[in-house]
Amino acid sequence: MQSNSFGKLFSITTFGESHGGGIGVVIDGCPAGLAIDEDFISKEMSRRKPGQSAITTQRKEEDKVQILSGVFEGVSLGTPIALFIENSDAQSKDYDYLKHSFRPSHADFTWQQKFGIRDYRGGGRSSARETAARVAAGAIAKLLLKHFGITVSAYVSQIGEVKLNANYKQVDFSAIENNIVRCPDENTANLMIDTIQQARSEGDTLGGIVSCVIQNTPAGIGEPVFDKLQAELAKAMLSINAVKGFEYGSGFAAAGMKGSQHNDAFISTEKGIETKTNFSGGIQGGISNGMDIYFNVAFKPVATIMQKQNSVDENGNAIELSNTGRHDPCVVPRAVPIVEAMAALVIADRILCSKVNKL
Amino acid sequence: MQSNSFGKLFSITTFGESHGGGIGVVIDGCPAGLAIDEDFISKEMSRRKPGQSAITTQRKEEDKVQILSGVFEGVSLGTPIALFIENSDAQSKDYDYLKHSFRPSHADFTWQQKFGIRDYRGGGRSSARETAARVAAGAIAKLLLKHFGITVSAYVSQIGEVKLNANYKQVDFSAIENNIVRCPDENTANLMIDTIQQARSEGDTLGGIVSCVIQNTPAGIGEPVFDKLQAELAKAMLSINAVKGFEYGSGFAAAGMKGSQHNDAFISTEKGIETKTNFSGGIQGGISNGMDIYFNVAFKPVATIMQKQNSVDENGNAIELSNTGRHDPCVVPRAVPIVEAMAALVIADRILCSKVNKL
Amino acid sequence: MQSNSFGKLFSITTFGESHGGGIGVVIDGCPAGLAIDEDFISKEMSRRKPGQSAITTQRKEEDKVQILSGVFEGVSLGTPIALFIENSDAQSKDYDYLKHSFRPSHADFTWQQKFGIRDYRGGGRSSARETAARVAAGAIAKLLLKHFGITVSAYVSQIGEVKLNANYKQVDFSAIENNIVRCPDENTANLMIDTIQQARSEGDTLGGIVSCVIQNTPAGIGEPVFDKLQAELAKAMLSINAVKGFEYGSGFAAAGMKGSQHNDAFISTEKGIETKTNFSGGIQGGISNGMDIYFNVAFKPVATIMQKQNSVDENGNAIELSNTGRHDPCVVPRAVPIVEAMAALVIADRILCSKVNKL
Amino acid sequence: MQSNSFGKLFSITTFGESHGGGIGVVIDGCPAGLAIDEDFISKEMSRRKPGQSAITTQRKEEDKVQILSGVFEGVSLGTPIALFIENSDAQSKDYDYLKHSFRPSHADFTWQQKFGIRDYRGGGRSSARETAARVAAGAIAKLLLKHFGITVSAYVSQIGEVKLNANYKQVDFSAIENNIVRCPDENTANLMIDTIQQARSEGDTLGGIVSCVIQNTPAGIGEPVFDKLQAELAKAMLSINAVKGFEYGSGFAAAGMKGSQHNDAFISTEKGIETKTNFSGGIQGGISNGMDIYFNVAFKPVATIMQKQNSVDENGNAIELSNTGRHDPCVVPRAVPIVEAMAALVIADRILCSKVNKL
Repeated sequence: MQSNSFGKLFSITTFGESHGGGIGVVIDGCPAGLAIDEDFISKEMSRRKPGQSAITTQRKEEDKVQILSGVFEGVSLGTPIALFIENSDAQSKDYDYLKHSFRPSHADFTWQQKFGIRDYRGGGRSSARETAARVAAGAIAKLLLKHFGITVSAYVSQIGEVKLNANYKQVDFSAIENNIVRCPDENTANLMIDTIQQARSEGDTLGGIVSCVIQNTPAGIGEPVFDKLQAELAKAMLSINAVKGFEYGSGFAAAGMKGSQHNDAFISTEKGIETKTNFSGGIQGGISNGMDIYFNVAFKPVATIMQKQNSVDENGNAIELSNTGRHDPCVVPRAVPIVEAMAALVIADRILCSKVNKL
Repeated sequence: MQSNSFGKLFSITTFGESHGGGIGVVIDGCPAGLAIDEDFISKEMSRRKPGQSAITTQRKEEDKVQILSGVFEGVSLGTPIALFIENSDAQSKDYDYLKHSFRPSHADFTWQQKFGIRDYRGGGRSSARETAARVAAGAIAKLLLKHFGITVSAYVSQIGEVKLNANYKQVDFSAIENNIVRCPDENTANLMIDTIQQARSEGDTLGGIVSCVIQNTPAGIGEPVFDKLQAELAKAMLSINAVKGFEYGSGFAAAGMKGSQHNDAFISTEKGIETKTNFSGGIQGGISNGMDIYFNVAFKPVATIMQKQNSVDENGNAIELSNTGRHDPCVVPRAVPIVEAMAALVIADRILCSKVNKL
Repeated sequence: MQSNSFGKLFSITTFGESHGGGIGVVIDGCPAGLAIDEDFISKEMSRRKPGQSAITTQRKEEDKVQILSGVFEGVSLGTPIALFIENSDAQSKDYDYLKHSFRPSHADFTWQQKFGIRDYRGGGRSSARETAARVAAGAIAKLLLKHFGITVSAYVSQIGEVKLNANYKQVDFSAIENNIVRCPDENTANLMIDTIQQARSEGDTLGGIVSCVIQNTPAGIGEPVFDKLQAELAKAMLSINAVKGFEYGSGFAAAGMKGSQHNDAFISTEKGIETKTNFSGGIQGGISNGMDIYFNVAFKPVATIMQKQNSVDENGNAIELSNTGRHDPCVVPRAVPIVEAMAALVIADRILCSKVNKL
Repeated sequence: MQSNSFGKLFSITTFGESHGGGIGVVIDGCPAGLAIDEDFISKEMSRRKPGQSAITTQRKEEDKVQILSGVFEGVSLGTPIALFIENSDAQSKDYDYLKHSFRPSHADFTWQQKFGIRDYRGGGRSSARETAARVAAGAIAKLLLKHFGITVSAYVSQIGEVKLNANYKQVDFSAIENNIVRCPDENTANLMIDTIQQARSEGDTLGGIVSCVIQNTPAGIGEPVFDKLQAELAKAMLSINAVKGFEYGSGFAAAGMKGSQHNDAFISTEKGIETKTNFSGGIQGGISNGMDIYFNVAFKPVATIMQKQNSVDENGNAIELSNTGRHDPCVVPRAVPIVEAMAALVIADRILCSKVNKL
């Protein structure tokens, strides 16, 4: 079943395996006339790429994006924009021991059950390397959003047990890239880095939370019923490897609140009609109301740990696995641009969808 | 933009406004040969319908489902199954005062911004009455799942500040329907009922959490990359009115865990290959692994409260609103069959999708 | 596999069997703010309905369209517009003899092979009665096109061996409804009526050709590559029961032409850039060029004849079939509004699609 | 609006411009476990490639297909198969004169109107070079059909005024590749070659007809209502550059026939239930009946001629155009593998779709 496309009008299709020729994406539906800033694409890619700092995997990929089609003299043609990223540092031999074994909490077993065949090298297509294509496509989406004045800003708000004690309104988005963990508060960032380095030394991994804020979305974006804006965002986020949860606006805390506390009173301001509070997270009835859209995304600790683990082989025989591949103790900082990319893809798609609402 | 369909192969399209002629759904893609049990559909409808107990809205709807097409001599034909539910107790005059006003945390404002027109009577299509069509379609999906031996069981695990202190393995699913709040623990249920009645007396509303467990899904269901099983479930749940968050398996708690704790070791059992723990929530790499699939859905308190509230009218003038419609102090017990319906629709769809994986 | 929807943005889903409760359609994607003229819908329905004249089937259906949703105070809401048409004159007992038999050139055999079950009464969903829903939806599409000044005009240009010797530019569209065969030339129309009555007296049926012209489509409508405007029109037409062929512009005659004859020179006129000739049929590279779009649709003679025919039953035993149902000697005149409806649905959809081409 | 994808379950997305980096396709939905024969892909590509014989364009492209993803050790993984074909002989400078001019019966004008920008070099994405990607994808589809024993055979049945006087049952499919015009009758082929060479000498171009036969499709393939098998085939064919018409089975001739002549009587044979005649073209009610599926596709003469032509520039000023690019006097022989590819894509897709018909 085809399942490698995302978006209705700004639609992307990704392809590629972790240890094949490369990773790519075809964007079908980008409007004609958009200036395609290749430097910006590169910058986005470098925020996701492996080996970018002391706290990530040692795999080194340049992740240079080739534009195969759809751009002419620096401007989008309205035709499919195909982007391709070669795999350069794919050490496939590292994975021979996985040919007949299932790693705990990886996709080896389920993939084998589903397809009867798998590219066992580095997880093949189930590898998070696939998200490189998302970031590339997300960069184009961000360029489209920029045209409309919309910004998407994500940051790390929790790593393991270290939490950022600040809501998004207290955060300085310009400080996000100031440290390698992408937490806008320096003290918290340092604690996060410490806890990651501790996990690395134990051969262990850590989960965390990425928070994301979308600003300047006009009111009226998003569709009612099944394709509510929050539903699209939830799907987008849960489609990212290792994500376990999504909440927007008041989120899970809403379960413990009363209507009289939670309702956002409408008020008139110099900008027009706004809400006094924003427990709604900028979305009411599935449609943006013009306020900030914000949400949290929970990541589990990645499954590849540098410790011996019990598992089984294809025949169900008990085995002991020792990872000999590369180790990323915490992917959450690198997930920041991925969350932004998926959010940008959702909003870009929904901006286009909103062009056909009314006569 | 069309946004009233859900599902790729077992696909539904809903229609209808709260105070129009009725609510309906067309199911396109139900395989031929399925026995359609009308009594079962009725039973499901009665679990969602208003006025079912002392703690729900007083609106009385019989919610009788008419089968307009697709069923011949009690069996599905493989053609679209159209289901229709008349609106009988629609008191439209109650809503005249909303013609030019925006209720806080309702969809009145965003709808007006998007479409430039709205059926202001009871929220029109943004009303949760639309979910009646989902429950009707979900009943057909459940009949399909039954054919494969798969069950879907949801229950209330939190109302306001009252929480069920038990995980899903400690819960007796057969006790869910024993009380009007649909919490399988009697003591907790009674506390929940008390807190709802307290909220009603204050003219206020409460949020809560619905937990859901899907059992006997074979390994291999769900697709990689964008249409991961958890991504489809997340979208399905976030498309339900008032939902603010979704988490599956370890959920948000995973953010604070280590890989060595969180990884689910594979073991061989008499059933085949299983996992020792199930932090994965039955899904790995977006594909079911045969273990129980479980997730939580957070609901905000509904926005219609029986208290005076500040708001604005269409021209931005400050107004004071007093609700004169009917009052549902807590929709969470009635959301249980809705969560089940959407979960069943996802799994039914994905079961069909899995028929084309391999040669 | 779901296959009852048509259109990407102005999307319809039809449902219903010939002898079930009725026939319906859900239109998802009609923009908000469109005045819905119910009289116009009725008028369109009466052009398709059975029993409208001496040369059609005797089945009598009032074909009154009920609007179940999506319209409020006469205006589209932007929500799904559900339309329903009851089956009133369904004489199901006429069809008992077909329970285990396959009529030649009907869908009985293929349906049984595909689904393992069928509603044998009047062909069930394979009946042309399904097109009532298309005409109803097409009426809404025509109202949308009217808003843009676009017109769709179809007429009968051939019945059996009687052909209209005139191209579309020589035709007076206002004369189409002047006779029961919908041929705009009176003499030819009379010959067509004669040939149909002759066929009826022989218990036989006749095929024919419907020609269609779409005027005032602005340049730039339609998409390149797979969804070319002519590809969408071809699919739309070939999805109509009994259609065997489609050609647009120069059509099959183009195969015998030279490029120097066939090329349409661009010229400047007071309207802007036009073409001197129009072999292109108003479409170049899949996109409208502003000239008239015109095409022909070939219909086979309907399979239900009042003569004895050889066939087989479900077990392959030879049988002799005598039709005892009602007889429509030539459906081509009634196909005129169906061709128009499908054309209108394609253009309405593509008008919306064209709103997202460029920044 | 995205429009570069084709197929519901065996779904392809093509990309690339005539004079950009190359042309490619992503196939999403090919089942896992299919042996991918690269030699077969190459053979198919060479049937379409320019410069293959004395009667085609002089553009020389090797059209070597690179497999970027989705194939592991020669077998499909069930993941997207991305194929890429570099543009090597793209002489872009030839096209500078078109920067501000519109060629008659090309897509220059409509593209400019739609997108406000175009890659004028060789037609950009509107070039038939895009069909290289279709042939590559079609080769994979053919490998899938081979697995089910289904064959697709197309041949040239008309070039200009030279017609093959034989129906498909009289044709020896093994003789199709015996001559450069791909007409299975040698005498007719020689006449066709003569007429093409005559046209070339005049700087003119010729149209023609490609006939196609699909054999061994099991009964039950194809869907009712909108996605009828003939509707999908019609769309597929009309999406090919230069196609003006499609007819299947009895086609346009059916318009002049009577029901008593046209009906295909069912008979029992050693193979099971078959029809005595096959005016139905192997499809009844949109679903295959197990008999041969056959259809004709009409091509116009290509628009690029080596004669002076009148046209206008972007400002509407009259200009005279002389083509200085390369010249293909008749593309019909090269269209044979394109027609086969699109037919194979339709059947492959519908074979998968038919897996979910019944319980």
